[in-house]
Amino acid sequence: SRSIDLAVIPGDGIGQEVVAQGLKVLNAVLPQDVKLETKEYDLGAQRWHRTGDTLPDAELEALKGHDAILLGAIGDPSVPSGVLERGLLLKLRFAFDHFINLRPSKLFPNTATPLAGRPDIDFVVVREGTEGPYTGNGGSLRTGTPAEVATEVSVNTAYGVERVVRDAFERAAARPRKKLTLVHKNNVLVYAGHLWKNTFDRVAAEYPQVSTDYLHVDAATIFFVTQPERFDVIVTDNLFGDILTDLAAAVTGGIGLAASGNVNPTGAFPSMFEPVHGSAPDIAGQGKADPTATVLSVALLLRHLGYETEAARIEDAVSADLAERGGHLPGPAGSGGGAATRTTDEIGDALAVRVAS
Amino acid sequence: SRSIDLAVIPGDGIGQEVVAQGLKVLNAVLPQDVKLETKEYDLGAQRWHRTGDTLPDAELEALKGHDAILLGAIGDPSVPSGVLERGLLLKLRFAFDHFINLRPSKLFPNTATPLAGRPDIDFVVVREGTEGPYTGNGGSLRTGTPAEVATEVSVNTAYGVERVVRDAFERAAARPRKKLTLVHKNNVLVYAGHLWKNTFDRVAAEYPQVSTDYLHVDAATIFFVTQPERFDVIVTDNLFGDILTDLAAAVTGGIGLAASGNVNPTGAFPSMFEPVHGSAPDIAGQGKADPTATVLSVALLLRHLGYETEAARIEDAVSADLAERGGHLPGPAGSGGGAATRTTDEIGDALAVRVAS
Ligand SMILES: CC(C)[C@H](C(=O)O)[C@@H](O)C(=O)O
Ligand SMILES: CC(C)[C@H](C(=O)O)[C@@H](O)C(=O)O
Repeated sequence: SRSIDLAVIPGDGIGQEVVAQGLKVLNAVLPQDVKLETKEYDLGAQRWHRTGDTLPDAELEALKGHDAILLGAIGDPSVPSGVLERGLLLKLRFAFDHFINLRPSKLFPNTATPLAGRPDIDFVVVREGTEGPYTGNGGSLRTGTPAEVATEVSVNTAYGVERVVRDAFERAAARPRKKLTLVHKNNVLVYAGHLWKNTFDRVAAEYPQVSTDYLHVDAATIFFVTQPERFDVIVTDNLFGDILTDLAAAVTGGIGLAASGNVNPTGAFPSMFEPVHGSAPDIAGQGKADPTATVLSVALLLRHLGYETEAARIEDAVSADLAERGGHLPGPAGSGGGAATRTTDEIGDALAVRVAS
Repeated sequence: SRSIDLAVIPGDGIGQEVVAQGLKVLNAVLPQDVKLETKEYDLGAQRWHRTGDTLPDAELEALKGHDAILLGAIGDPSVPSGVLERGLLLKLRFAFDHFINLRPSKLFPNTATPLAGRPDIDFVVVREGTEGPYTGNGGSLRTGTPAEVATEVSVNTAYGVERVVRDAFERAAARPRKKLTLVHKNNVLVYAGHLWKNTFDRVAAEYPQVSTDYLHVDAATIFFVTQPERFDVIVTDNLFGDILTDLAAAVTGGIGLAASGNVNPTGAFPSMFEPVHGSAPDIAGQGKADPTATVLSVALLLRHLGYETEAARIEDAVSADLAERGGHLPGPAGSGGGAATRTTDEIGDALAVRVAS
């Protein structure tokens, strides 16, 4: 009989609430014969305040044993900026070599978008997850003095760039439109830019069926709002991917709907699925958070573990729910949906009912 | 009697066309007693193909002697990416210590925006211009092999950050809404982020009349499309500023309307004014480019040189022209306006007539 051994990190703020709905829908969609085991890990701001721990070795080790990780949100204003992000979230992405940060963007029917004309948006950003300016390389000299120098080093390797570029070509080749756009800034960041562009062009020769395109990151933001329908698959660097996927979320119904997967396709470590949004402490505990992004992240998790039917069932349920009810909750960054007509729990319930039937 | 000694670098693609209109409007707006001298510099792709030069020392030296520089656009697909950007455009910004990269964004009446609901947009981005990931620090090891490592180093100094932050506070204090937002990514880029945030907070204490705010760059892109009216002045790093100002241009009528100034407020070197858009080789020489961004850059140039009345006259003319004619040219990145009902020259003529009357 089949089983899923899932680690759950609710984290901070609305993390707890949205993860509860994600698990509710997961339980509802799984066939009877699949045994779901979950283990909750108490990590995040409260733990840090209590013990000073962000992610101790023992827990990192224990997390390795699971099939996958579901994460809510990490971060709180009471914790100095960077402590939990670097010490917990990014530590997990790096330790488990999540080199594919997968972020689909789709404008569902009847969903609010700030764009006039409701363009037909359906693309996926394949964001590199283990390199670029996220490595933590850099430092600061004469800190706090008028002579301070602070550096951040973006590290890019042929090894790291090639594997994410290959993954993106595979994904593009498997989609109907078969189009892949590289986004970088190779007219300014010439060293990293040339590595990315040369790798992209070399791998492209192996995928003649995929049409390719290059855009500077600044120009890409323009097309995200003027012609988002032109994109199919986008491959990009860790930082550019971070920026572009928030913008993508904003134009496709808001950050309350944006799912993501931190994927290690080799299976050497568990992959981790989380909504793109943050912990939104301002609305935490009030039943105002839209759990849809977490529910859609559960769909990505299921697909990753081979449960394609169940993943599609969740996505169809979200699509139907939005089509019928529209005006979802405003979402953590206040960026999406219409009137907040349903609570977090009500949306979770509605989706659970849909996937079960 | 007064005089302006202007260096003109038309550059590549549509650069020549739009600069011609900028000069036309400049001539029309200047009072009789102001003597305008212009000297054209042949720099850009053609020069590079002919001689291999990007910006020779003698010309750099000669440029220093002018009151200001008007630049069209730099870059052509026939030149390897980075050669002209680093060797000419960025070389000028760095050599002349243009630490304020000023980029106003205003949604003029009757101007097309991809945003539903036509929000009231009127903010200015103060982008740092001489540091960050633009310094050219970095390199590549084992280039072209499977063991390649390429780095880009973002360099941030207390000296560089404080001067741009102070400038931004001054600008915010002089505006009716008196609001300044710092945009960075201090939860990941902790070294540079802390320098920026600490400097910002320290200088803020000297400006109690200015209300302040901090946003991560990814979240900022969300607000650019969902609540752009919340911004007044934004101060940010060189790369984040590059990305955000293209997005800002996209939501305020397109890159065909976006002006910029590379300013050295000390006056030690000439400041340089240029449209945000690129050389758009696809539409070059066809009279399709919208010269408005260049004309608005001329307004920034005049304001910098102390001709406030004339600067305002140009801005009013653009506003009136757009209000009456609307649907400007699509703009270099195909991102703005409505139907292309007028040629580059016709728009320049219309603006010249307006500022003269
Ligand atoms: C919280 C932060 C470290 C994170 C990132 O920058 O990757 C977030 O913005 C995201 O996109 O998942
Ligand atoms: C052409 C390029 C070097 C430049 C930049 O990145 O600054 C441009 O995008 C801009 O915004 O002026």
